Amino acid sequence: MAAPLRLALHQMDARVGDLAGNAAKIRDGLRRARDAGAQLALFPELAITGYPPEDLLLKEHFLRDARAALDEVAAEAHDIVALVGFPERAEDVYNALAVCSNGRVQAIYRKCRLPNYGVFDEVRYFQAGRGGAIIEVDGHKVGLTVCEDIWVPGSPLLEEALAGATLVVNASASPYNHGKGVRRERMIQQRARDNLCAVAFCGLVGGQDELVFDGHSVVIDHEGCVVARAAQFAEELLITTVDPDAARAARLRDTRQRPAARDAEPRVDHLGVFDTPALDGEPKVGGPVAELLDPDEEVYAALVLGTRDYVEKNGFRHVVLGLSGGIDSTLVLCVAVDALGADRVTAVTMPSRYSSAGTRNDAKTLAANLGVELLELPIAGPMSAYDELLAGPFEGREPDITEENLQARIRGNLLMALSNKFGWLVLTTGNKSEMSVGYSTLYGDSAGGFAVIKDVPKLMVYRLAELRNRGGGPIPPDIITRPPSAELRPDQKDEDSLPPYSVLDAIIEAYVEEDQGREQLVARGFAPEDVDRIIRLIDLAEYKRRQNPPGIKVTSKAFGRDRRMPITNAYRAITRESSPV
Amino acid sequence: MAAPLRLALHQMDARVGDLAGNAAKIRDGLRRARDAGAQLALFPELAITGYPPEDLLLKEHFLRDARAALDEVAAEAHDIVALVGFPERAEDVYNALAVCSNGRVQAIYRKCRLPNYGVFDEVRYFQAGRGGAIIEVDGHKVGLTVCEDIWVPGSPLLEEALAGATLVVNASASPYNHGKGVRRERMIQQRARDNLCAVAFCGLVGGQDELVFDGHSVVIDHEGCVVARAAQFAEELLITTVDPDAARAARLRDTRQRPAARDAEPRVDHLGVFDTPALDGEPKVGGPVAELLDPDEEVYAALVLGTRDYVEKNGFRHVVLGLSGGIDSTLVLCVAVDALGADRVTAVTMPSRYSSAGTRNDAKTLAANLGVELLELPIAGPMSAYDELLAGPFEGREPDITEENLQARIRGNLLMALSNKFGWLVLTTGNKSEMSVGYSTLYGDSAGGFAVIKDVPKLMVYRLAELRNRGGGPIPPDIITRPPSAELRPDQKDEDSLPPYSVLDAIIEAYVEEDQGREQLVARGFAPEDVDRIIRLIDLAEYKRRQNPPGIKVTSKAFGRDRRMPITNAYRAITRESSPV
Repeated sequence: MAAPLRLALHQMDARVGDLAGNAAKIRDGLRRARDAGAQLALFPELAITGYPPEDLLLKEHFLRDARAALDEVAAEAHDIVALVGFPERAEDVYNALAVCSNGRVQAIYRKCRLPNYGVFDEVRYFQAGRGGAIIEVDGHKVGLTVCEDIWVPGSPLLEEALAGATLVVNASASPYNHGKGVRRERMIQQRARDNLCAVAFCGLVGGQDELVFDGHSVVIDHEGCVVARAAQFAEELLITTVDPDAARAARLRDTRQRPAARDAEPRVDHLGVFDTPALDGEPKVGGPVAELLDPDEEVYAALVLGTRDYVEKNGFRHVVLGLSGGIDSTLVLCVAVDALGADRVTAVTMPSRYSSAGTRNDAKTLAANLGVELLELPIAGPMSAYDELLAGPFEGREPDITEENLQARIRGNLLMALSNKFGWLVLTTGNKSEMSVGYSTLYGDSAGGFAVIKDVPKLMVYRLAELRNRGGGPIPPDIITRPPSAELRPDQKDEDSLPPYSVLDAIIEAYVEEDQGREQLVARGFAPEDVDRIIRLIDLAEYKRRQNPPGIKVTSKAFGRDRRMPITNAYRAITRESSPV
Repeated sequence: MAAPLRLALHQMDARVGDLAGNAAKIRDGLRRARDAGAQLALFPELAITGYPPEDLLLKEHFLRDARAALDEVAAEAHDIVALVGFPERAEDVYNALAVCSNGRVQAIYRKCRLPNYGVFDEVRYFQAGRGGAIIEVDGHKVGLTVCEDIWVPGSPLLEEALAGATLVVNASASPYNHGKGVRRERMIQQRARDNLCAVAFCGLVGGQDELVFDGHSVVIDHEGCVVARAAQFAEELLITTVDPDAARAARLRDTRQRPAARDAEPRVDHLGVFDTPALDGEPKVGGPVAELLDPDEEVYAALVLGTRDYVEKNGFRHVVLGLSGGIDSTLVLCVAVDALGADRVTAVTMPSRYSSAGTRNDAKTLAANLGVELLELPIAGPMSAYDELLAGPFEGREPDITEENLQARIRGNLLMALSNKFGWLVLTTGNKSEMSVGYSTLYGDSAGGFAVIKDVPKLMVYRLAELRNRGGGPIPPDIITRPPSAELRPDQKDEDSLPPYSVLDAIIEAYVEEDQGREQLVARGFAPEDVDRIIRLIDLAEYKRRQNPPGIKVTSKAFGRDRRMPITNAYRAITRESSPV
């Protein structure tokens, strides 16, 4: 029997491409882990480069620089074994985990399972590893895995368990979406029980363009119990002690449940034996266990972290957004203030003759409650100038959506002018329901650098606003209760041209996230005319979405890298007929 | 010895998602092939769905509908064997080639090599086939391959040749870029010689969002000679006769050159024996051989076809563009007129006080020479309205890039207003050199639906304009000889703020297309300060490019699906230091 093992999981926010900054953060974590008596320190997947580095991985000089940064980290790995994710350039390129000890990289494990679906493109960059790997740390056999390796039952986890691993570590960069934290933790519990081994999962945290990584590192024992858990959506060095020998004892005792050799390929590399200084005293098994957020709290936290990281990692000091007094810009303003502080946010109200006194007053009250500067720029002047200039070409034509779009584009221009003059980042305020059906103006309300709630459906926007207002918040109640309107013509209401959001959001979820077809939707009870109309609107708005700024993925399928539809697309799920657009 | 075989290669323009339309086009080709006495008819990769269908392939109902369309085609395959590309939904999804004969799908070959680099994402959608396949047609063994299968030496082509195939067919959808036609043809010649077999390559033709497929179908004999070639960038039914027995004779004779069994896996499926009615008389071997375009003619043809197909396949009747009198908008106007005819194009000149008389007159002359309607919308009025409105927030600040961008955005708004009012598609006119360094205004000159020359570097823009003007064309010579300027402030010239285009374009090509790093560029002789500045500009403009409309890929690496860089990216190829943006 070996003594229990003290682990450090460094749930860190890596910045894509910042090799020196990430290496410094890893070294800092390593020092703190050693100070806390840890024998084994685990870092997230591709901690050296950040995740996903995308086509940076096609640059040979980037891979060389990443290796140099890894070697700097390894030079400080003394009296501890550090497992550090990096892209390995060998006879091919691998998504790898370096075993660092005694001041250098001692061995390298290569990720076996490369995700190439959803937001993932790993086959574009990496060759797959050919099997599992084990190291021995202070008498314990530790299996190595990277992210996707553990999402699939069987290889390489099973082989590692059969080769004697009683603790399996997983270095991960797992993008958040609504409810994923709980699903992921349950999956890890299942793997631990199935293979009778403890599992230590170290998750990346932080925002990267469209993705937010939620951290949520956990250590699970061989019975599936949570031994330690780090906070969600925040950096943390999680220190905990596990007793892998408990898993070994269980295997010898419970022969019916142990993993079966006949299902496995015998391919496991043994990457070395490592010893670290003995722990003082008799360590208590276990560690801190953070409380889990509820699902809507998770989404709000993801929006705050995703916004903060986009702003900070891209070097902006200040953000600006159009504040209409509607629910969407209200939520975005709250997120921005929670992410950056009120003094780094400017709101701009840009009323037209269609703006109601109610929304204008609510915008003012909200800005005042949050302590945010509010500019007012009425758009009547530019609107008249455009009307005059276009009077010739538009002669004999009635006002229509053209003039509505011009209002939105004037507002976009004004926000971009503030951005240009003062170096502010423009946050856009469109929600997923609008993005889906194209209920937005290209270069108008969609103009900006970051689309905070582009993947948040309208009904969820309301839930998040209510969550933010819980216990007496800054949002005037009218903003939540007033029927939604774009205020681009007199007495306009969203529900005049769209089905109620309860129907719209449900159809969008089924069509976009679940790839259901027309017949399946009708079979679920949606009115055929709603289904046909919404599907058509979603398909036709693809060209707009392609030009929208990035925003934070919070559902199971976001527009952007996650859903790659052709713009030129004659397929209509509605009938089998070929139909012109 | 079997008689020579008559082949039909249907180089068709499939429309993505238009299952019924594509099936009708295939049936039409099949009838014409049979009328011409062909025994074997070959269609492009995924001819049923168009290529690439992208995430349509994740929809179960789409795959079911595609199979139904295939079955309709197969029902008409009588007295001929038809090889038709489609996505097969079985225990997994395959990129497949259906062998249709006697009124039904008789067998299915599954593509073995799935490209997942550059613009390709096939691993996202498909499972790979496990080996080659052969059919026997009128006594000849014919090997089946799909696109990428033939780009890689060895499997499955080698196995098919070893199993006796003396003719190998390749159903392809190979996106065009500059010079690719010749490279591809040479590669096919090499495969034919290496495996001592004739190769019939049937290419897709047409534009699909960012991609143009160039057709350029060819039949190559076992000695590498071109037996027949279809036109580039146009639909064609290529009828030709080949004598596969010549390859068999050569193998028996020339034992040193025949393919070697020791390199191959023995995995080849025999998919059936098919006989068609005997050919009348003694057919002459060979077929029409189209002349190849020169490289710049190819690019121009690609722009015309790509523009025409984007407009037509998306159902637009008319296009509009801003005509400044500069070289970029001049080239785009010529392409648009050649693609659609002058009566479907409107040009708009939107002068400011910085527009020179020379460019304004040149724009008028060009429009007149091409017979295109020209609108004039001076932007002074809206500009004043913005200046007035922003006087408050901008108090104490000097005019800067903000006001330049506002001019460009007013022009973008005007074009979009015309688009909204009349249903016209806006073509944008930015070239690749500008896109690279961010020398464009987001929501300004980059506002529109299709960016015709976004992948054409500035020097190539000049070459293409000269090509279009060859032998006395519509372009006033001043447009070609005047130093390029954005005309957004007095006496502005591009080369005041950028290196000469001969340097700029070369650095862009090395950095973007070849992924060279800073040290490699300096070693090539570029001035370090130019390299550092251009690389930095390219990196920082990623956020703009992400919001640009799609345009036609003509280089080896285009912005868009082809080059997937993070926006949030702290990596600077310039030094190894971490540096804030």
